[in-house]
Amino acid sequence: MTGELDTFSLKAIPSILGEEVQAVQRSLLDTIQSTSSKMLAELGTYYAARPSKQMRPRLILLLAKATGSGYFFLNILIYFMTLSASASKDNQVSMKHTQLAQIVEMIHVASLLHDDVLDNAATRRGETSAPVKYGNKSTILTGDFLLAKLMSLAVSLESWEVAQEIPGIIGDLIEGEMRQAEGALKALRIDTFPIQILDHDVLWADYVQRIYLKTGTLFARSAKCSVLLHKNVSSDVVKAAYEYGRNLGIAFQIVDDILDFTGDDTLGKPHGNDIREGIITAPVLFAMKESPEIRALFARGFSQPNDIDKAICIIHSTQAIHRSEEVAMQYAKQAQDSISAWEPSPAKCALEELTRWITMRKH
Amino acid sequence: MTGELDTFSLKAIPSILGEEVQAVQRSLLDTIQSTSSKMLAELGTYYAARPSKQMRPRLILLLAKATGSGYFFLNILIYFMTLSASASKDNQVSMKHTQLAQIVEMIHVASLLHDDVLDNAATRRGETSAPVKYGNKSTILTGDFLLAKLMSLAVSLESWEVAQEIPGIIGDLIEGEMRQAEGALKALRIDTFPIQILDHDVLWADYVQRIYLKTGTLFARSAKCSVLLHKNVSSDVVKAAYEYGRNLGIAFQIVDDILDFTGDDTLGKPHGNDIREGIITAPVLFAMKESPEIRALFARGFSQPNDIDKAICIIHSTQAIHRSEEVAMQYAKQAQDSISAWEPSPAKCALEELTRWITMRKH
Repeated sequence: MTGELDTFSLKAIPSILGEEVQAVQRSLLDTIQSTSSKMLAELGTYYAARPSKQMRPRLILLLAKATGSGYFFLNILIYFMTLSASASKDNQVSMKHTQLAQIVEMIHVASLLHDDVLDNAATRRGETSAPVKYGNKSTILTGDFLLAKLMSLAVSLESWEVAQEIPGIIGDLIEGEMRQAEGALKALRIDTFPIQILDHDVLWADYVQRIYLKTGTLFARSAKCSVLLHKNVSSDVVKAAYEYGRNLGIAFQIVDDILDFTGDDTLGKPHGNDIREGIITAPVLFAMKESPEIRALFARGFSQPNDIDKAICIIHSTQAIHRSEEVAMQYAKQAQDSISAWEPSPAKCALEELTRWITMRKH
Repeated sequence: MTGELDTFSLKAIPSILGEEVQAVQRSLLDTIQSTSSKMLAELGTYYAARPSKQMRPRLILLLAKATGSGYFFLNILIYFMTLSASASKDNQVSMKHTQLAQIVEMIHVASLLHDDVLDNAATRRGETSAPVKYGNKSTILTGDFLLAKLMSLAVSLESWEVAQEIPGIIGDLIEGEMRQAEGALKALRIDTFPIQILDHDVLWADYVQRIYLKTGTLFARSAKCSVLLHKNVSSDVVKAAYEYGRNLGIAFQIVDDILDFTGDDTLGKPHGNDIREGIITAPVLFAMKESPEIRALFARGFSQPNDIDKAICIIHSTQAIHRSEEVAMQYAKQAQDSISAWEPSPAKCALEELTRWITMRKH
C-alpha cells in the first residue's frame, strides 16, 4: 500500500453527496425525539447524535444516485439542454432514499444499544456506554423502540419488497451473531469436537457464511433496497446492487478482522480481541495453513496462559495478514465488477472510492 | 360476585374456536424453529411452548369470526341452504387471521424475554427464567429475532394498514413501560415534586394513559387489525372493534392492578408488588381519596419501613378495591356496548363471555 492510499479518507465522498448525509442525520434525530418519553428521546439520541463513518447511508445514497434511470442518452440530452450549474448525470436522492438510509442507521444504533448491554460494555467510542449511563432496562427498551420505529418507517416506503427486506436484515444480523457465539463456544471447547472441524475449507466456508450474516447481508440487502426504490428499474440493476453490497460487506468485515491484529489505537481495543472471544477469523485461518503450532493452540481452544499472545505472534510471522488482505481485495474487486456495466457518473466514481477506502482503511 | 361467576373460566371459549387456537400455536412454533441457529430455536420456543391463557389469539380469532360480512340475510340464507352440521353464521377464520394471532403472541413472547432480562427475573410461571437458563445475551438476541420475524410476517399479510399497526403496537408498549418507569421514579422521589401532582384527576388521567399504552393499545390495535383483514369491511365495524379492544384492554389491566392486592397464589407474586416498584394504580388512587394517611405515605414515596404494608392495609380497609372493580366493570360494559350493533352470532356471544371472564377472573 502506498502512502497516498494510506492517507485516503472518506472525506472526498461528502462533496459528492453534499447536504444529503446531513439530511439523513437530521431526520434520524427528529424521528427518535418524536416520543412522549423523555428517556427514550434522550437515550435514543445518545449514540445516534455521535455518528461515526456514516458509511451505510453513503452507500445507499450513492447507489440511489448511480442508478434509477436506464435512459442514458436522454439524461445526457437533458444535461446539455438544462446545462445549469446544478445539473449532472446523477439522479437526485429522493425523500424515500433518505428514509431508507435513516432506517439502516437506526438498525445500526439499535444493535449498538443491545450489544453494549449483552457485552457489558463500559465504554463506546471513548465515552461512557449507554447501559452504564442509563441502566440496562432503559437501554434494552430504547433498542426495541428504535426497532419498532424503523419498521414503521420501512412500511411507510410503500414497497412490499423493501418492507420485507428490512426485517430480513435484522433477522440475518441476529442469526449471524448467534452463530458466531455458538461457533465461539465450539472453538473454546474444541477438544470435545471431532478433528474434521480443523479442515480449512470447512472452517473457511463457515467463516464466510458468518461474516455474510454479520455484515454482508446489511450491505447487500440495503443496496438492493436503494435500487428497488426507483421506479421501473431492471432486475439486472437490482441484482448488481445486491452483489456489489454483498462483496463490499464481506471485504469490509475481512478488513475489520485484519485490523483486530494490526489496527491502530483509534479502535480502542487490544489486538487479538476476536481470538479472546473464541471467534475464528481470516488471519487465524491462514496462519493455521502455515503453522502447526497455531493449529495446536486452536485445538486446545487457546486455553493455556499466553496462548493468545503466541497466536498473535504467529499470525504476524506468517503470510496470514497479507493473504487475508488479498482475499479482501478480491471481494472488493468483485464488488466493483458487479456494477461495471452501469453508466459512468460521479456517483459511480464515488462508489469506486468507497470500495477503495474500505480495503485501505486503517481503522 | 356469585359463586357461578367465580368458577367461570376461559374453558367455554375453545369449544367455539375449535382447532383454531391450536393452529396458531403450531404455526408459532414452526416459525420460531425455522432458523439455522439451534440456540434461537430452543430459546425462542422456551416460553412460547408453554402458552398461558392465549387470550390475545382468542380475541383476534373471535373478532374475525364475528365480523367480515355485512350481508346478514345472505348469511342466514346460505346457512339454511347448506344446513350442514358445520354451517354457522360465524365467518371462517382465514390463514391471515391465524398469522395475525401468531404475530400478537410473538410480540407477547418477545416482551416476556426482554422483561425478564431487564427485571433480573429468576423465574417465569414457576420455572427458571430464560436469562437464568440461557444467559442475558442469548435472551436479548432471541427477543430481537422474534421482533424481526413477526414484522416479516406482518408485511406478508399484504395490508399497509395492518403492517403499520404492528410496529405501532410495539412502540406504544415500550413508551408505556418507559413512562411507567419514569412515573415510578417520580413517585419514589415525590418530595421533590410540586403538590399538584397529588391531584386525583391529574394522577387518574396519567394512570389511564399509562394502562392504555401498556395493555389497551395491544388489545385495541390488534382487534382493529383482525377486522381490517376482512375484505370490504365498513369503517364503522373497524372503529367498533378498536373501541371494543381498547375498553377491554383497560378493564383487563385495572383487574390486573386489583389482583396485585387481592390475587391468589397462582400469580406467584407478593401483594403490593406495584407500590414496591413505585407504580401507582387504581386501588391506591381510590384509597387516597378516602384516606389522608395513604396520601402521607404516598407523599414520602413509601420510604419508611412498613409503609408498603400499611398502604396495603389501608387499601383493604377502604372502598378502594370495590371502586376499582366498578371502574373495570364500566370499561367492560363500554367494550360490550361498542359492538352491540353487530349481528348476533356464536362468536359475538363468545366475545361477551371473554369480556365477562376478564372482569371476573381471580388470576
